[in-house]
Order: sequence, then C-alpha cells, then structure tokens
Amino acid sequence: MLREPRQERSRTTRRRLIDAAVECLAELGWHGTTMSVVAERAGVSRGAAQHHFPTREDLVVAAVGYLGDEQIEELRERAAALPAGPSRALPVARMLLDLYTGEKFRAALHLWVAASTDAALRAVLVPLQAKVGREAHRVAVELLGADESQAGVRETVQATLDLARGLGLANLLADDTARRQQITSQWAKMLEPVVG
Amino acid sequence: MLREPRQERSRTTRRRLIDAAVECLAELGWHGTTMSVVAERAGVSRGAAQHHFPTREDLVVAAVGYLGDEQIEELRERAAALPAGPSRALPVARMLLDLYTGEKFRAALHLWVAASTDAALRAVLVPLQAKVGREAHRVAVELLGADESQAGVRETVQATLDLARGLGLANLLADDTARRQQITSQWAKMLEPVVG
Repeated sequence: MLREPRQERSRTTRRRLIDAAVECLAELGWHGTTMSVVAERAGVSRGAAQHHFPTREDLVVAAVGYLGDEQIEELRERAAALPAGPSRALPVARMLLDLYTGEKFRAALHLWVAASTDAALRAVLVPLQAKVGREAHRVAVELLGADESQAGVRETVQATLDLARGLGLANLLADDTARRQQITSQWAKMLEPVVG
Repeated sequence: MLREPRQERSRTTRRRLIDAAVECLAELGWHGTTMSVVAERAGVSRGAAQHHFPTREDLVVAAVGYLGDEQIEELRERAAALPAGPSRALPVARMLLDLYTGEKFRAALHLWVAASTDAALRAVLVPLQAKVGREAHRVAVELLGADESQAGVRETVQATLDLARGLGLANLLADDTARRQQITSQWAKMLEPVVG
C-alpha cells in the first residue's frame, strides 16, 4: 500500500497547517495570518484547512498547544544532554534563559499582543497561556533540582522564567546574544544558593 | 491676551498628538493607530497633525522618546518618595518590577512587535529602544546604589530590568499583581548581597 492511511494523512495535514500558522505568525504577525495564507503555505486547499480548523481561533488554540508541547519537549531533550554532577546551575540557566529567543516565542508574542486588543482571542489564549506556563515551571523545577518547600525557591524559579521572557523581548528586534550570555553567568551564580 | 502664544499652542498640539498616539497604540495596536485616528482623538485636524508629524513613523519616534522620558521622570519622582536608610532593596525592587505593567508598556510592546515584521519601523525603533534602555539602566543603578565596578553588579541590574519586562508581558492579558508581589519580595532578597 503506497498511499498513507486516511487517519495518518489527516494528522499530517493538521500538522502542516499548524507549522504554517506558527511560521506565518512569526513572519507576518496576527494580522497577516489569515486562513488563506496559512492554507496556501501549508499546500492545503482552503476547504481542507477549514475542515480541520473552522476558525482562525481554532487554529491558534492548536498552534499554542503545539508550541507549548514543543517547548517542553525541547527542554527535556536538552536536559538529557546535560552533564551529570552537582553544579548544573550554569547549563540549566543557559537553557532556560535561551528558551524564548527563537521563532516560536516570536509567534506567541504576536498572539499575546493581538489578544491584548481582541477579547475573543484573549478568551482562548489566557487559559492556554496559564497551562503552558505551569508546564514550563514544572520542568524548570525539575531541571534545577529545586526544592519548592524551601522559602523563596518557587518565586526564584518563576523569576527565572519571567526573566527568560524579558530576554526574549530584548532579542526580538536585534541579536542580544552577547549581553544575554553575561546576564546568564551572573544569574547562574545567584541561583546557586537558592536551588539545590 | 487670552489666546495662547503661537509657540505654546504648537507645543500643546504636539503633546496632544503624542498622548493620543500612546493611547491608540495601547488600545488599538499598531494597525489601528493611523494618522487619522490619532488626529481625531487628539481633536486636531488631519492637516495640522501632518504639519507636526509628516509620517506615522515620525509620530512614533516622538512617542517613544516621550514614553522613555516619562518613565525616567516617574522613576525619579517615586525615588524621591522612598524612605532613607540602608535597606532600599525592597521598595526599589517594587518600583522597578512594577515599571512595565501599565498602558505605556502596552503601547511600546505593540510597536516592538509590529517592528519585528516591518523593517522601516524597526530602523527607527532599534536605536531609540537602545537609548531608552540605557537611561532606564542608569536610573536603576542610581536607585539601587549599585557599584558597577564590582563583578556581576552590572549584569544584576540588567537582569532586574529584563525581569521587569518579562513581568510586564505576564501582566498583559490578565492581572498578575499578586504573583508579581511575591516574586518581588524574593527578588529584593536576592539583590541584597549584590547591590549596596
């Protein structure tokens, strides 16, 4: 049998639409991310696209869920490649503070900013954002070997992720890598006494 | 003489256009911030608006400069109201980490995100953003009484402002005040050994 089974094909189409949506968001922003543009980029007919995602909001919900899952997956993969040993603060800090410097963050940022002036989009994004944020927090705790029963540890992990998003913002319009690396070294030192 | 002198009047008009532009950006985003919308909100004719700001980019340059100056001014005012004494870490941390939670950050964020897909806007924004960032850094150093000749201090001050921007992002779609306050308490503790 040379043809993909129907279910498989459907999953592939869905995934291509999501990938195309993320690319469009990062490159063109929310206003440029119409169903027609996404369908064309995915090489899918407008009708097939609408079969999978009746509205642009449906597509966005799927894309944000996918972005969140990918982020966690990426973190886990990179974590598995970390050296064993007591001082993981620097490599983990680097991993976490580089987290929001790529295309996926840019795509998410376009959505957040669009949602700030669009109540319908906000209604779907806020709960999703909370879920993705909780997941990222859980993985960060794990990677840092942090004991959240100790006072201040939970807030330090939160600050790490909020700092990472701030650094993502600073990297949006120009390459901020050199400055970010210096901040990361210092951040790792500040993390040492707080996390295990 | 009841009429405003002409120069004064011109300055008032300019200022009204800038205020209207900031409001429009925060409420409607970059796409909604056209010269006509801004002029109407400012109660200024389209022609008069274009006399002051020939293009939307010119208006944005003025608005970002204004946003930066206002931010520094606000910081200085709040700093003057701080209690004297050795431990300024908590009140200063609160001041800095609340910095990007209002309408002005929302307006700036719309611009940054629009600039990420608009080369002309990016060309005017990047140098301005760098200038405003340097100013904020200088004031933060002053407020914290930080000695940047000590290793790591400069990066810690930078991290404080990047964290503040990340917290601004976290406050964009929903009120994040309670969580931010807890992070701020912890952040102040982490600042103590680093800054003077």
